[in-house]
Amino acid sequence: MSTPEENFAKLGLNLPPAPKPIGVYKPLLVDGNHCFVSGHGPLQDNGILQIGRVGVTLSLEEGKLAARQVGLAILSTIKANLGSLDKVKRVVKVLGMVSCNNDFEKHPYIINGCSELFAAVWGPDNGVGVRSAVGMGSLPGNIPVEIEAMFELI
Amino acid sequence: MSTPEENFAKLGLNLPPAPKPIGVYKPLLVDGNHCFVSGHGPLQDNGILQIGRVGVTLSLEEGKLAARQVGLAILSTIKANLGSLDKVKRVVKVLGMVSCNNDFEKHPYIINGCSELFAAVWGPDNGVGVRSAVGMGSLPGNIPVEIEAMFELI
Amino acid sequence: MSTPEENFAKLGLNLPPAPKPIGVYKPLLVDGNHCFVSGHGPLQDNGILQIGRVGVTLSLEEGKLAARQVGLAILSTIKANLGSLDKVKRVVKVLGMVSCNNDFEKHPYIINGCSELFAAVWGPDNGVGVRSAVGMGSLPGNIPVEIEAMFELI
Repeated sequence: MSTPEENFAKLGLNLPPAPKPIGVYKPLLVDGNHCFVSGHGPLQDNGILQIGRVGVTLSLEEGKLAARQVGLAILSTIKANLGSLDKVKRVVKVLGMVSCNNDFEKHPYIINGCSELFAAVWGPDNGVGVRSAVGMGSLPGNIPVEIEAMFELI
Repeated sequence: MSTPEENFAKLGLNLPPAPKPIGVYKPLLVDGNHCFVSGHGPLQDNGILQIGRVGVTLSLEEGKLAARQVGLAILSTIKANLGSLDKVKRVVKVLGMVSCNNDFEKHPYIINGCSELFAAVWGPDNGVGVRSAVGMGSLPGNIPVEIEAMFELI
Repeated sequence: MSTPEENFAKLGLNLPPAPKPIGVYKPLLVDGNHCFVSGHGPLQDNGILQIGRVGVTLSLEEGKLAARQVGLAILSTIKANLGSLDKVKRVVKVLGMVSCNNDFEKHPYIINGCSELFAAVWGPDNGVGVRSAVGMGSLPGNIPVEIEAMFELI
């Protein structure tokens, strides 16, 4: 069986730099054998947050890729704080928030961009937790997707 | 003292079929002596999600009934995954999300539809946890209410 | 080292009365060595909730003060239920929800009003947890900010 780090390496994806807090909070906090991760945005490899609104300035596919980029930013935060993706045993909970207009309906499809990444890293059982996917009126700095998560540690 | 299963039977309500995930997530996850439940919608007995927007296409009473239906879908998920409502000791936390216009103000009244159901099943102390009730710009598939919850197990 | 109660006293701020639930929920629930706090609004010293919409009827500074007032209401709930702010060891998680229009972008600045209060009470490490700050279409009773939180107990 391959490790989460090995699984991630096989994907051929880059990790953006670990995001710095843009307010009074920690990106990640360890509490017993759990770790909580703050709401993350789609931080790009150049350190700049992608902006836009899903279904308005971003297509469905672009929105799903933005959610994957949020997932990559979360992985980067995990590596920066815990040293390795292998320190995480499994995904417990994801809250996926999509910035979109009131008539948008495809939130689960968008957030799958992050969830499929986690499933590829930690596997189809451990990489999949509970989830809510919902539509926000607005998100900080006009980012299209914000995701917070909770993991169980090894 | 009657059990949660007995309490539910007395209500004379039907459980809808346990909802299938509409994305990459688990409907329920057990973590130690807690269980987390994904965001659920108002799944009806025919297996179809009720749609609409509270205060627009649904009245207050219809919205509250939709929240109760979400609660019934959560009960169905609990029974399908844990075998019995008796496996749950108490409600810890509920996040109730209402799809509504910006001038809507009665979110607590709507989400009470779910909370009153849980209180009837697990009792006025164990059946009542902390809660946030808030208004969303949009929800998946145009459902009027989405609720996620966390329970403590026996 | 000063205690959380001493830190709070130094701030010279008043605590509003502990808010009564406006629905079927508990303001605070203890679960093992954690405590969960329901979504709170900006309850004022006179027991009335401040209303408004950030960026529309409230300026940025007024919005940030509203978030601080939500933090004070949470402190009041903690004191009423646990007896003392000293019973809380640290902040684990904050979800800060701002009622605002779709083009609003300064959610982290607003929610800092609460987070800076918590940091002053429990210190720059223990008083700062993970956080998401997001924009809601609407909040109960037209309040401008709603915040829920999770703490670790002593």
